[in-house]
Amino acid sequence: MSENNQTTGPGPSSAPPPAPDSGLRVYALGGIGEVGRNMTVFEFAGRMLIVDCGVLFPEDEQPGVDLILPDFRAIEERLDEVDGLVLTHGHEDHIGAVPFLLRMRPDLAVYGSRFTLALVEAKCKEHKLKPTLIQVSEGERRTIGTFDLEFFAVNHSIPDALALAIRTPVGTVLHTGDIKLDQLPLDGRLSDMAGFARLGEEGVDLLCVDSTNAEVPGFVTPEREIGPVLDRTLNQVQQRVIVACFASHVHRVQQVLDVAQRHGRRVAFVGRSMVRNMGIAADLGFLQVPEGLLIDADEAAGLPESHVIFVSTGSQGEPLSALSRMARAEHRNITLRRGDTVVLASSLIPGNENAVFRVVNALVRLGANVVHQGNAQVHVSGHASAGELLFLYNAIRPSNVMPVHGEWKHLRANAELAIQTGVDADNVAIAENGVVVDLVDGKARRTGRFEVGHVYVDGLSVGDVSESTLSDRLILGEGGFIAINVAIDHNTGKAVSAPTVSGRGFSDDPKALDDVVPMIEMELSRTEAEGIVDTHRVAQAVRRVVGRWVAQTYRRRPMIVPTVISV
Amino acid sequence: MSENNQTTGPGPSSAPPPAPDSGLRVYALGGIGEVGRNMTVFEFAGRMLIVDCGVLFPEDEQPGVDLILPDFRAIEERLDEVDGLVLTHGHEDHIGAVPFLLRMRPDLAVYGSRFTLALVEAKCKEHKLKPTLIQVSEGERRTIGTFDLEFFAVNHSIPDALALAIRTPVGTVLHTGDIKLDQLPLDGRLSDMAGFARLGEEGVDLLCVDSTNAEVPGFVTPEREIGPVLDRTLNQVQQRVIVACFASHVHRVQQVLDVAQRHGRRVAFVGRSMVRNMGIAADLGFLQVPEGLLIDADEAAGLPESHVIFVSTGSQGEPLSALSRMARAEHRNITLRRGDTVVLASSLIPGNENAVFRVVNALVRLGANVVHQGNAQVHVSGHASAGELLFLYNAIRPSNVMPVHGEWKHLRANAELAIQTGVDADNVAIAENGVVVDLVDGKARRTGRFEVGHVYVDGLSVGDVSESTLSDRLILGEGGFIAINVAIDHNTGKAVSAPTVSGRGFSDDPKALDDVVPMIEMELSRTEAEGIVDTHRVAQAVRRVVGRWVAQTYRRRPMIVPTVISV
Repeated sequence: MSENNQTTGPGPSSAPPPAPDSGLRVYALGGIGEVGRNMTVFEFAGRMLIVDCGVLFPEDEQPGVDLILPDFRAIEERLDEVDGLVLTHGHEDHIGAVPFLLRMRPDLAVYGSRFTLALVEAKCKEHKLKPTLIQVSEGERRTIGTFDLEFFAVNHSIPDALALAIRTPVGTVLHTGDIKLDQLPLDGRLSDMAGFARLGEEGVDLLCVDSTNAEVPGFVTPEREIGPVLDRTLNQVQQRVIVACFASHVHRVQQVLDVAQRHGRRVAFVGRSMVRNMGIAADLGFLQVPEGLLIDADEAAGLPESHVIFVSTGSQGEPLSALSRMARAEHRNITLRRGDTVVLASSLIPGNENAVFRVVNALVRLGANVVHQGNAQVHVSGHASAGELLFLYNAIRPSNVMPVHGEWKHLRANAELAIQTGVDADNVAIAENGVVVDLVDGKARRTGRFEVGHVYVDGLSVGDVSESTLSDRLILGEGGFIAINVAIDHNTGKAVSAPTVSGRGFSDDPKALDDVVPMIEMELSRTEAEGIVDTHRVAQAVRRVVGRWVAQTYRRRPMIVPTVISV
Repeated sequence: MSENNQTTGPGPSSAPPPAPDSGLRVYALGGIGEVGRNMTVFEFAGRMLIVDCGVLFPEDEQPGVDLILPDFRAIEERLDEVDGLVLTHGHEDHIGAVPFLLRMRPDLAVYGSRFTLALVEAKCKEHKLKPTLIQVSEGERRTIGTFDLEFFAVNHSIPDALALAIRTPVGTVLHTGDIKLDQLPLDGRLSDMAGFARLGEEGVDLLCVDSTNAEVPGFVTPEREIGPVLDRTLNQVQQRVIVACFASHVHRVQQVLDVAQRHGRRVAFVGRSMVRNMGIAADLGFLQVPEGLLIDADEAAGLPESHVIFVSTGSQGEPLSALSRMARAEHRNITLRRGDTVVLASSLIPGNENAVFRVVNALVRLGANVVHQGNAQVHVSGHASAGELLFLYNAIRPSNVMPVHGEWKHLRANAELAIQTGVDADNVAIAENGVVVDLVDGKARRTGRFEVGHVYVDGLSVGDVSESTLSDRLILGEGGFIAINVAIDHNTGKAVSAPTVSGRGFSDDPKALDDVVPMIEMELSRTEAEGIVDTHRVAQAVRRVVGRWVAQTYRRRPMIVPTVISV
């Protein structure tokens, strides 16, 4: 297994090394070593193909950040060499950064399936962009610039997902996108194992394969087993039912519609993204809506409780979502009562536990029964478990493997599965973001590494918030700040008035900082005595005194912000 | 089921209503409606008994806070009426706030088992307190002031845990403390079901019972099944092994020692609390340490890798812990290599997922194999699952039940188990913190409610950081601040120098705020023209202008901090 860890290999530089003359190059600008912001670049004969362009959602360490983009720096000077952007499916971690890439090259052709492009179009509209969208379908073979592509149907937790083969004179790559092998998919659209096997026969030189669930043994339960669970839940309930799930999970929602129909309940969508996406899905025929089933939320609120199901956003505990508002008894037209049922038909994304549990407890406190994956099978994953990955490896028989889409633990587990099926360990490349893999003479090898940073979107701007600002936010968020204002005489350095000291985020006690004032005054006498008139040096002295005092007195580390003016 | 939710009952006041003349009163100052800071007060005939006095660890919403204490306000004027503090066991969420209560009443007698008191003593020593400690044991019956107590052995994830019965002329309460019913406990000390049954025969008027795992069906796997899993893990490993677990989990550590002994490895404890607690446990005979097995960490680092096991803190991803340092390749004397094994023999406390996964990924990246409860049975819970709770209810047959120790979802699930075993639903009181339950004439009823707030410890001080400071920290942590310094003439209100504007935690771009300066100057011209010389009013005007500008330009909400001085 060819890996890149901190203890070996050259340090990162800012750009990839020169490409080989007759090889195919692969590297990720996001999505490997993390779950999110997927973006993989393929280079051949001086031309590039990009697969996916998604966003990553920030963690606690990145306060105030809205989104994290792939790091475009490695290619931004060469965007005219890109033949196209191919999107495997419509999840945010695969399409969310498309508008930001298009701002840099508005004429870049974007390829994807019908549903994927419909979501991209809606997203670009919000960004006031008119992208060049080119629809492709499973089974289709199409040349994009230098690259000869073939698309395959794959099953995932969103309709119309694709895998793609990239044929070049020096080798063929198969990129699975996000995939699982549900053998009874709700829409009958199987992951195209026959196509993969045929391609395998032809020869797959490099397989880029979804690692998300590589640690999970066995097989993902079929999506359609959720329907009967919802059915049983509704059998026991006479009152109001709310189902929360991801706003792009059309098949999950389809099952809610089907169950609602059987129980004579009408359905209302709640939450902006749910309303928008299900509208698109219904328009394009991905969601089958029985005549007259849907009503709007206002109307639904007026119906008897046993006649309606709400399908809502908020399954991750987002504080502004419809579900959170219901839990806080603040929703405009849905007031929960004892005996109502809330179904969280979704996964729990790591990091969201506290937010989700807060919502669950608040719902229970209001008397609602909460059904979730912990007490009923109301969710299944969209990513292949280890057993399915073995099927994939055995069908495709790739010469080389590059695990994608996952954190280190997932990549490593996936690499081990590849090796178990007979892939030569030397030909399995764990290549996190910025690691360059060159396929030359049938062998994929790591040939270099460049730096891939975090690009933060905060409000309207991209990239002006970086690590040093985040580090300041972490300090401020933990301890607040203490501001000291001092005016000194520009000739003598003597304080011309009493220093003012005030804290924010430091203490509720208005007298908390009183005792430091005499210490600052003493320090100012000292700097004056030493003839220091430089405001910067005085500020440093004040910062030191206040910092030491607050550490000793409170054992805390607020930011100390002295302002010294000389008058 | 008698509950207290937001839609019914009187609003909270600051103190309990008058106690009944001939009744037993119960209320919690922490620990009900949350997991942590357990503290329950029993009142009879004007005297009080306190059970447990623990801390709660803060969530994201409480940045910078070290600990959260029970809210003592309801009893702080009446501490002389307290006959004693009984501690059920030595976990932080049951003993962590003892020093803070003792500061208010240093002579309060503290009762607990041998191991519990040893941990309390060590904790009090750090706080420079010399508490009055009175040791009690299972099987013992003892009068503490007005209260006639009996102690029962219970099995939990720490040795020497106790339940207690409180007999009064108006009724008998059984408080389980934290409990599970491991039928093959490592130390042979079973939860005393025979004693509970005997007490049940006598009549238990109120059962206060651990709710933590009431949602989990079935039974907790016996602790001793972890040993063979560790054994198998060690069979496969020739290199270094690190086991991380809670520093108070003596039986877990015992199993590591036993396995080490069998495999001819020596053991080193790493991490301050691990070294301290295991020292106490060994001294008191709760941890059996074979002669010569233990060595110190420095010495262990020098041994061949196959000759040693490190037992470490850091199982929750704490950034400063030994394990996190190893994961960052920053540990003083343990450098991990490919093929080393790390076992996380612990639960994953909700909210710690990101921190733990960050450590796991970093370990995997270094080449370590990570064994955790997700891929091997290396942890079992310390709290009874639903199946065990049913055994408890059926053995005790209480007339009234008050679920304790849990969030709303746990309390509700526990209440339903009680009702299933035949407890009258009207006699099951879900009473979160501050809800007063009075047992009168054999019936437990909610009779009032008072406010229980969060009391924050931040560094050395208690209570000076409160909700408004935390709210400021959340704003600062999300968006940083923009400070504006303005000096105006005290007669005319005219700006005497150009305003200075600086941000922290706002942007890495040094020019990010340049454009706002002319807008401030324009506003100052306006306030001058209107003859405004009041610094507070000028500051308000500046705050408004800058806030509006930053919202429009950046769509962000930093704290705006204007300082206006008049000269």
